[in-house]
Order: sequence, then structure tokens, then C-alpha cells
Amino acid sequence: MSELVFVGIGLHDEKGLSLQALEEIKTADSVFIELYTSFLPCFSIRRLEELVGKQLRVISRHDLEEESGALILNAAKAGKAVFLVPGDPFIATTHITLRIEAAKCGINTRIVHGASVISAVIGLSGLHNYKFGKTVTIPFPENFSETPYNVIAQNKSLGLHTLCLLDLKVDEGRFLSINEALKLLLEIEQKRKEGIITPATIAVGAARAGSNCPTLKADYVEKLLVHDFGDPPQSLIFPGELHFMEAEALVMLAGAPKTLRGVSR
Amino acid sequence: MSELVFVGIGLHDEKGLSLQALEEIKTADSVFIELYTSFLPCFSIRRLEELVGKQLRVISRHDLEEESGALILNAAKAGKAVFLVPGDPFIATTHITLRIEAAKCGINTRIVHGASVISAVIGLSGLHNYKFGKTVTIPFPENFSETPYNVIAQNKSLGLHTLCLLDLKVDEGRFLSINEALKLLLEIEQKRKEGIITPATIAVGAARAGSNCPTLKADYVEKLLVHDFGDPPQSLIFPGELHFMEAEALVMLAGAPKTLRGVSR
Repeated sequence: MSELVFVGIGLHDEKGLSLQALEEIKTADSVFIELYTSFLPCFSIRRLEELVGKQLRVISRHDLEEESGALILNAAKAGKAVFLVPGDPFIATTHITLRIEAAKCGINTRIVHGASVISAVIGLSGLHNYKFGKTVTIPFPENFSETPYNVIAQNKSLGLHTLCLLDLKVDEGRFLSINEALKLLLEIEQKRKEGIITPATIAVGAARAGSNCPTLKADYVEKLLVHDFGDPPQSLIFPGELHFMEAEALVMLAGAPKTLRGVSR
Repeated sequence: MSELVFVGIGLHDEKGLSLQALEEIKTADSVFIELYTSFLPCFSIRRLEELVGKQLRVISRHDLEEESGALILNAAKAGKAVFLVPGDPFIATTHITLRIEAAKCGINTRIVHGASVISAVIGLSGLHNYKFGKTVTIPFPENFSETPYNVIAQNKSLGLHTLCLLDLKVDEGRFLSINEALKLLLEIEQKRKEGIITPATIAVGAARAGSNCPTLKADYVEKLLVHDFGDPPQSLIFPGELHFMEAEALVMLAGAPKTLRGVSR
């Protein structure tokens, strides 16, 4: 049987795998894994190999993007291949290319979904999912871009919240922090002066969503700039208009200033 | 220990539970479950009870919304309570209220995330997550609203895709279908005449995302109106501007007309 199954690992360690995911791995002829599109703080390949009694083959960005995932496609042509991916597999858009390639080769593809950083951070924040606009990634300073500022501005003009993912290079152990991201946004504000992200703007920082020790803090940007969020991964939310239940959530669950209750509706 | 753990079940059956979720259930003093905010086609309470060797207590909408979840809060005050919820727990905004109530009672809360319909349908579609705008739910005809039309129009004006969840009443076995949702949107178009959703608009229908037999079909609305998507749950996507890789994904993975390749960029 020629088959490629994309399996989401979830957010933190190998216990994020679902029972279905485990079954797929156990019945696979070959199992691949990539750990560069997202950071799973406590994931251990060795522990997972022991759990499933199988060897995993680690796939690099080069294997996938320069070699078009030939290793995986060849294995899937010969039998059942499972490809383990952090989070929910296709939130990393790079893997869609592999799925299309597989389809072109006549390989049947399936998806076993996992917990995604998107719904995890939104859920942790206590804000309402249907009030989020476009999501954006804030890049490292060397890839400076005003796009995140523009996206936050556009969402705010529509009353919508913005989820900002923060750039990471897992292989280099580099993770953009909430503190750094806010500094970058304030630099853009200094130039643009549109009042979108100022020291007095309320934002929400989330660290290690999906782990046993997530941190959630809502406060003014000037306070969050010096707040210690601890280890990565981290994300940021800029709220738009707040429903009163959302303001209450930020006060009760994220330690937001109680004055926030007064500006919601 | 006074604790309330919200656990996401995922999308289809009890195999959507993660290993972490299973551990939480096994170490809980009491386990509650609700199955009304979303539909898990093959989930069996009995099978899960056998798997974990524990009885589950089913929570109704009335228990949660009229009684403020007192059953769960009282159990969490007395020990470790686990509350099982379809998908990822806080995508259903109703559960945020319970988490706030718990915080007010001094009960520690944690989240074990599960696969969410949001990232599952977006992932299945092959469209890029960061190009989606606001999500909207299309209500049953008796709760008719032009909001979905407005949201789709606003997202389209920004070049963004719209994920439309379709209303459901699990306890009555009622699920709005893609066919019905499209009819409702065309009725609004007839009145508004803004050219947002016409028989010649491209849309993407997804059914049973997260199951072993999902269906994905991209086509003109006039074709999707009579396409048989099979069993629920179903969802709809209205694409905004398509990147050429997204058009390719819709052609290769969703059987879209090949002419779609020409309108992307």
C-alpha cells in the first residue's frame, strides 16, 4: 500500500500524540519526523522510539525544501510512511507542498491532526476565537518588516484581535521573545506614529502554551517590555475591541489591570 | 488538591485523546464530559469508560449555562476534576466562563489541548493559515443573519479567506449542510447584489475533517449546491486571493477546476 500519513505531534512533548497517532506509527513501514518548523520544549525522539519500538528518521529543512522530500516520497511509494510534524501538520505551510507532490505521484495521503499553537494560544488567552483577524509572524530583526504592524493596525481598525507568532530558528536555538518583539513594534511606531502600538497599549503575552507551565500576562506594553516570560516558545496577542467577558477573562486569567473592565462592552 | 483540568478530545472518536489527556483522566477524582458544542461522529462514552476504567458524567448545556457548571466546580473544589470537551477546549467560547468562575473560586485550572476544527479544516483545505481573516458561523434558517455574508465580504475585500463553521444542534441531530448554507448565502446575495457569493464563485466544502474519511471539494457554488458531501460535520471556506501554491493545492487536493491556476498569483 502506497500511503503518506501526516501526523501532528502537538505542542510540548511526545505525550501530545493522540492514540490514533500512536496506532499510525506502530503500523507504519517507515517513520519520519521534523522538529524545525516549531519548538516542542520537552520532546524526546529517544523516548518516542522506545514507546513505539521503532526508529524515527529526522528530516531537516534541507531534506524537505531543497530535496523536495524525496526520502519521504520514496518511502511512501514503497509502503506506509508516517511523517510526524509539530503542532497540527499543515499550519506550517511548507508541508502542503509535500502533500501536493505526494498527490502528483499517486500516493494516498491522510492527516492525523494534533493540537495547534493557533487554537492553543487563543484558548489560553480567554479571548473569543471568532474575534481574531489575520494571524501574523513577527520576524527576527535581521528580517525586519513592517507587515506585523500593518496587520495589527488593519485588524484593530476592524475591532479584531491579532495573534502574533514569534519567529524561531530551532536548529540555532534562537527564539524571538515577547520583549524583543515589542521593542521592534515600538520602533515601527516611532516612525509611523499611528498610535497602533504605544507603551500604553494593552497586549497579552503567552509563553509555553500547551506545556504544564504556561504563562499568560496581559498588561500595558511598557510593563510587558520588562516582564520575564521565561523559556520559549512565546506568542503575543494585540486585542481589538473587548467584549466584557473577554475583559473579565484578561483580568481573572491573565492578571490584566482591573481598569480594563471599564473599556469593554 | 483543588484543580480543574480542561481536556480537548479532538475531532472524531476517543482515539483523538492524547497520551497526556489519558493520564489526566486516569489520575482524576471525577471526570465530566460534554458533547453538545461540537459533533464527534464516532465517539463512544462506553468505550472511553472501559479504556480508563472510570465512569464519566455527561454535562448538558443546561448544567453548564443555567447552573453555571456548579457540578463541575464543586467536584473541582473537592479534588481533581477533569472536563472533557470536543476539539480544543476554548474554541467553544462558552467554556471560558467556567474557567473564569473556577479562578474566582480559587480553583487552579489547566488545559490539555486537542485538535481543533479550525486548524483541521484549514489544514485539510491546503490554503495558508496566515491568509485567513475572521471566522464566522452560519446559523440555521430560523436564526437567519446577514453577518456571515458581511464577514465573507469584508475578508474578501482584504484578499483574505473565510472559514465558515456550520451551525449544529447535536442533541436534536440537526446539522446545517454545505448545500443549505450556500442556499442561505445566495438568498442574501439576491437581496444585497454585491457579487460576493454568486453561482460562479469558487468555494471549498469540507466534511468530516479529522475522521478517516474526510471529503474536500473545491468548485463553483452552483456545483457545490448539488454536491453530496455525505455525513456531518461539514464546513465551508470562501477563498480570497489565491497564492499560486494555494490554487495548485485546490486543484490537486480538492478537485478544483484547473482554470483556477490562471487566477492565482
